[in-house]
Amino acid sequence: MSERTVGVGMIGYAFMGRVHSQAWRTVSAFFDLPLTPSMRVICGRSKEAAGAAAERMGWAEAVTDWRAVIERDDVGIVDICTPGDSHAEIAIAALAAGKHVICEKPLANTVQEAALMAAAAAESAGRSMVAFNYRRVPAVALARRLVAEGRLGEIRHVRAQYLQDWVVDPDFPLVWRLRKDKAGSGALGDIGAHIIDTAEFVTGRRVVGVTGLTETFVKERPIEGAGRTGEKGTVTVDDAAVFVGRMSGGALASFEATRFATGRKNALRIEVNGALGSLYFDFEAMNELWVSEGGAGFTRILVTEPDHPYAGAWWPPGHGLGYEHTFTHEIKDFLEAIAAGTDPSPSFADGLRVQRVLEAVEQSNGTYKEIP
Amino acid sequence: MSERTVGVGMIGYAFMGRVHSQAWRTVSAFFDLPLTPSMRVICGRSKEAAGAAAERMGWAEAVTDWRAVIERDDVGIVDICTPGDSHAEIAIAALAAGKHVICEKPLANTVQEAALMAAAAAESAGRSMVAFNYRRVPAVALARRLVAEGRLGEIRHVRAQYLQDWVVDPDFPLVWRLRKDKAGSGALGDIGAHIIDTAEFVTGRRVVGVTGLTETFVKERPIEGAGRTGEKGTVTVDDAAVFVGRMSGGALASFEATRFATGRKNALRIEVNGALGSLYFDFEAMNELWVSEGGAGFTRILVTEPDHPYAGAWWPPGHGLGYEHTFTHEIKDFLEAIAAGTDPSPSFADGLRVQRVLEAVEQSNGTYKEIP
Amino acid sequence: MSERTVGVGMIGYAFMGRVHSQAWRTVSAFFDLPLTPSMRVICGRSKEAAGAAAERMGWAEAVTDWRAVIERDDVGIVDICTPGDSHAEIAIAALAAGKHVICEKPLANTVQEAALMAAAAAESAGRSMVAFNYRRVPAVALARRLVAEGRLGEIRHVRAQYLQDWVVDPDFPLVWRLRKDKAGSGALGDIGAHIIDTAEFVTGRRVVGVTGLTETFVKERPIEGAGRTGEKGTVTVDDAAVFVGRMSGGALASFEATRFATGRKNALRIEVNGALGSLYFDFEAMNELWVSEGGAGFTRILVTEPDHPYAGAWWPPGHGLGYEHTFTHEIKDFLEAIAAGTDPSPSFADGLRVQRVLEAVEQSNGTYKEIP
Amino acid sequence: MSERTVGVGMIGYAFMGRVHSQAWRTVSAFFDLPLTPSMRVICGRSKEAAGAAAERMGWAEAVTDWRAVIERDDVGIVDICTPGDSHAEIAIAALAAGKHVICEKPLANTVQEAALMAAAAAESAGRSMVAFNYRRVPAVALARRLVAEGRLGEIRHVRAQYLQDWVVDPDFPLVWRLRKDKAGSGALGDIGAHIIDTAEFVTGRRVVGVTGLTETFVKERPIEGAGRTGEKGTVTVDDAAVFVGRMSGGALASFEATRFATGRKNALRIEVNGALGSLYFDFEAMNELWVSEGGAGFTRILVTEPDHPYAGAWWPPGHGLGYEHTFTHEIKDFLEAIAAGTDPSPSFADGLRVQRVLEAVEQSNGTYKEIP
Repeated sequence: MSERTVGVGMIGYAFMGRVHSQAWRTVSAFFDLPLTPSMRVICGRSKEAAGAAAERMGWAEAVTDWRAVIERDDVGIVDICTPGDSHAEIAIAALAAGKHVICEKPLANTVQEAALMAAAAAESAGRSMVAFNYRRVPAVALARRLVAEGRLGEIRHVRAQYLQDWVVDPDFPLVWRLRKDKAGSGALGDIGAHIIDTAEFVTGRRVVGVTGLTETFVKERPIEGAGRTGEKGTVTVDDAAVFVGRMSGGALASFEATRFATGRKNALRIEVNGALGSLYFDFEAMNELWVSEGGAGFTRILVTEPDHPYAGAWWPPGHGLGYEHTFTHEIKDFLEAIAAGTDPSPSFADGLRVQRVLEAVEQSNGTYKEIP
Repeated sequence: MSERTVGVGMIGYAFMGRVHSQAWRTVSAFFDLPLTPSMRVICGRSKEAAGAAAERMGWAEAVTDWRAVIERDDVGIVDICTPGDSHAEIAIAALAAGKHVICEKPLANTVQEAALMAAAAAESAGRSMVAFNYRRVPAVALARRLVAEGRLGEIRHVRAQYLQDWVVDPDFPLVWRLRKDKAGSGALGDIGAHIIDTAEFVTGRRVVGVTGLTETFVKERPIEGAGRTGEKGTVTVDDAAVFVGRMSGGALASFEATRFATGRKNALRIEVNGALGSLYFDFEAMNELWVSEGGAGFTRILVTEPDHPYAGAWWPPGHGLGYEHTFTHEIKDFLEAIAAGTDPSPSFADGLRVQRVLEAVEQSNGTYKEIP
Repeated sequence: MSERTVGVGMIGYAFMGRVHSQAWRTVSAFFDLPLTPSMRVICGRSKEAAGAAAERMGWAEAVTDWRAVIERDDVGIVDICTPGDSHAEIAIAALAAGKHVICEKPLANTVQEAALMAAAAAESAGRSMVAFNYRRVPAVALARRLVAEGRLGEIRHVRAQYLQDWVVDPDFPLVWRLRKDKAGSGALGDIGAHIIDTAEFVTGRRVVGVTGLTETFVKERPIEGAGRTGEKGTVTVDDAAVFVGRMSGGALASFEATRFATGRKNALRIEVNGALGSLYFDFEAMNELWVSEGGAGFTRILVTEPDHPYAGAWWPPGHGLGYEHTFTHEIKDFLEAIAAGTDPSPSFADGLRVQRVLEAVEQSNGTYKEIP
Repeated sequence: MSERTVGVGMIGYAFMGRVHSQAWRTVSAFFDLPLTPSMRVICGRSKEAAGAAAERMGWAEAVTDWRAVIERDDVGIVDICTPGDSHAEIAIAALAAGKHVICEKPLANTVQEAALMAAAAAESAGRSMVAFNYRRVPAVALARRLVAEGRLGEIRHVRAQYLQDWVVDPDFPLVWRLRKDKAGSGALGDIGAHIIDTAEFVTGRRVVGVTGLTETFVKERPIEGAGRTGEKGTVTVDDAAVFVGRMSGGALASFEATRFATGRKNALRIEVNGALGSLYFDFEAMNELWVSEGGAGFTRILVTEPDHPYAGAWWPPGHGLGYEHTFTHEIKDFLEAIAAGTDPSPSFADGLRVQRVLEAVEQSNGTYKEIP
């Protein structure tokens, strides 16, 4: 292994595993990196499935025990793409072994677990990052830049929504994302976490308190694999969460995360209103950022210009990027932080802070909770 | 006066007075009505200004005492376009005199006043209506029709915003709408009232409880007419209100009313998500209704077809209407209800219900309040 | 009649008659005018229908002979809202009688007629205007202002379309607009005329040559009133016209007028590209103008600000206007020109120029024709 | 080399080379393919640049003579990413050697060259494809499917534009794409070719005749590398082309290709109007297809559902794709055709047909030309 190469081991090979793999495979072709990742090993519970995933996605080997990944000397980075209930154990072990860790969001299923992970990260020689990939949409990164430059003035409002509809059908089965033991929470932790992070990232402000409501619209669903028996199980997570709050600096914030917004597929949206201007983003049109500088309209900026964040590495103006690029950008930033010896962003500490907001929303039931 | 003519007296001649006048002047040319309004008298505090308004807007006479309007035998309808602090007194007097009353929103500045008005309406031979004009946007009326027909299925979410930006400038003066004694509340009562009513109108459900926050971003402003002395006074109303709640039938609701959404001019928006479909409306594109029936997209319906509400009375498809038409439609419905001897909608009782939601939001400060 | 009042007589009471009436009735309430129009007389072939129209639309009298309108001393303005085959005769007679004339578009059914009308206008003491109402959309007027100020730089491209779909159904009857003897031409003269005028108006350049094609997709249609006999007649006008050309100053232009664009209701669109910027307008969203000043996007300007053309006379920002307002603005400008003793714009000479372009397109059949 | 592996050699490593490389590197990870491509060799004129490109983009070797690529036994596919002036020579040699060939568009710089290439393709055992990648946008493929299923009925109109603005600045240098000897033509061949192909692909109809105009707005530009001497050279290609025509089956078509549409970055647009419905696409929002089925609006379909063309291989609904995916899809289809022993689409014969339309436009100068 050359000094400039770092071995990567990935735990998990489902949706997140596929998209992370594509990012590891692609990042060096488009960015000049101080470290070249080498896709060493993928880990999954089924030998056969992990082997097929390795071949297809370009990993050199497949194993079934995540501990075996952490023990390898040729693995410098551990990429955790499993459900939330295993994040803490794997990440803490990897950090203890001095590995750099990138972990899918939400960081953990509870504040307690997240706090242990953040503590482990603080003590480890390894660097750690929580994979809030939407920060790396060029339009979202441009939004943050505009706010940081003061183009919007004092921030008054944040209005963020994450709208999906994939469980609207009451016959959709009781998958792991609908079980509290695996997923921690429902729409709140899965997608609500993204808009909390995005709101804080874009504005540079923190959520300091919230009041809100959650709801489970469909309370029982067919058990997976139950087939025609029609056996049902209880949905133990929220289907939707709506909450409002205050941000540091005095802005009001409004959030909504739901899997019941029929016709909305992956609408992560954020609008920020400042004293001088506003901006608006919707992931369903991910190459666009709408910006007002105080006049009678919003400008639809196609975020594909050479001087836009990340965009210059790819194609000419007007040739848009897709979902997977956000992960490629994330890994680029992670590798650069490792090489520079700096903390990647968002760190596990950032992930812990989001977890605290999630907990406050879960416990709110209509009462205002300050975020510790 | 023919049996089919009804005299109208209007109190107030500012913004609302102008748009109501245009509606009274126009309604008979486009709708076949059982009653023909006759624009008898306009009332304003300044003799000169009221006279000029009468000439310009087509009223036969101008007076300065609203009691003189109510006393006239040739006036059957009293149209109240004054600030909220005078609504109760005028409306109760007019109803006591047996007049039909249409009153601008919010119905009153307090729940107590609104309750007295609703009681007066219940006892009077006159009919009464509160002027939530946005119900009469063809697209909003079509939205209600779609929900009522069951096209959206069980309602899960209501997401309503009313975004303006006309007081973003801290040097904007302390007009009456920023004073609690005149206006009752700020963005909440002025525009928040509209989205509460619109949400209830479109879904046919009631807001049953809310929790939320209000904020005054700019706490002092130049006194009107103070000129270069630069004297400032205290803003005594909210600049913005954010709140979430529950609707009857189990839907979650999210509301936001603000005058600080830079770049948004008159964005009254509502999205409703149901088990089978969704709809979306934004008044800044008032001739459009976006509807999803569960597939991979929303249809932008241009609400100008002959079978769309109100639209058939006007122009061919694709020839849009404007803001003032909502008032023409409102008056058409009011006249039809009077002629039919039925209660117009929204009635003063509806206005009282909205007032109770406004009060709950004002008192919430982050705590859940059930609506009585 | 006060010196400042001018009597109006209108010929025709169908679609155009209704919208012109609404404009005459409304204009004085919203604009400070040097002349106040008085709606004296309406003329239609049926006594009964004309009488009903007069009562409904607010005209003092109804007559059945247009010559009687022209002969009246109390009529200073003649408003021609009839099909194109009668424009020349009526307008020339009215101008000969010294009346001011506003005439619906296209000015005439042939270049020859239009030339006679323009000559009559040049010799008359009366002022004349051809009713290209889309010039008076605030967004279109703002577009012209931006070009005139040089904000777009040298003009390179004009791309104009007028898309409707009201005759897509082959069973739609053979109405007068589909007959050459009444209408002169089809989509070309009816709506193609508008985009030619709009392109010239916005850019301040003239169409100097064209090459193009026309087509009649449905060649026979049921005769009106034939009922179940199913008798059909021949469509003698074009259903669609597509043409490209050159503008003075060197820009390329592309035009398309059709009644067969299924799903497009009244989509008059124009895009102009200049060396420094671009603009785009679509009448189906008539309160919006999209402007690029050379960067990575277009700004959606809501054309409802006090300093936008015509908009300040109406409502606050964000409260849009509708189709009929374009006529109110047109009449306002007409009255101001009459009072000022200047030529209204567009004049009959402008209408003649558009007619020459229409003729060139009709005769082109794929061959380039210079406009005389 | 396993039977299921095919070696690939690529000629050229600039813009097209980078995006083709990403496609070759990615295609097997997302599609189950009958043939696995192996990236054997890349060819460029500079040894150093070709070597760097090979390392970065994942090619096993780099060479400087394209003939060396064709002679290799381990190369089964030749991918031609050079300027148009070398397409014919390379492709004909590769086909003569029995290689499969994928060639960038336009197929050639002249009809004569394209005809020779199509003849060579017809005689070769190798399969050939011209790289009109926009056919492989999922939304464009869905558009074709809808037309083919008859959902739009008889086709009446095609309206296609390709709008860019990258040479608006008169100081932009005289790059090879602005020189006739290298590029054949300007906007016409570079991007006009795409909309001709897209129009034919989506509708299943052929362009049978055209009349139009071309223009070079900026006639001299700085020579590349001339630096401060400011030496200028003549632009020998068109900057823009506008043309209208007829399609087989009777539809009218309107086309526009320009590099002077300020603010438009890569707006390949097509609208098709049929007797029953319409569709609209703009590459600047490449994950959307707008479809009307005859009612009062268009549905914005997010083309990311599992049953949409190509989309099921990637991410869940609402997670959009980018520009490069069109090439990955193209190569997937190419490999499948090779394995199946069928002619890929679009073939060199298709490319020749587009070339004939381009020639007709170039020669038209306002006169109608039938396509042979």
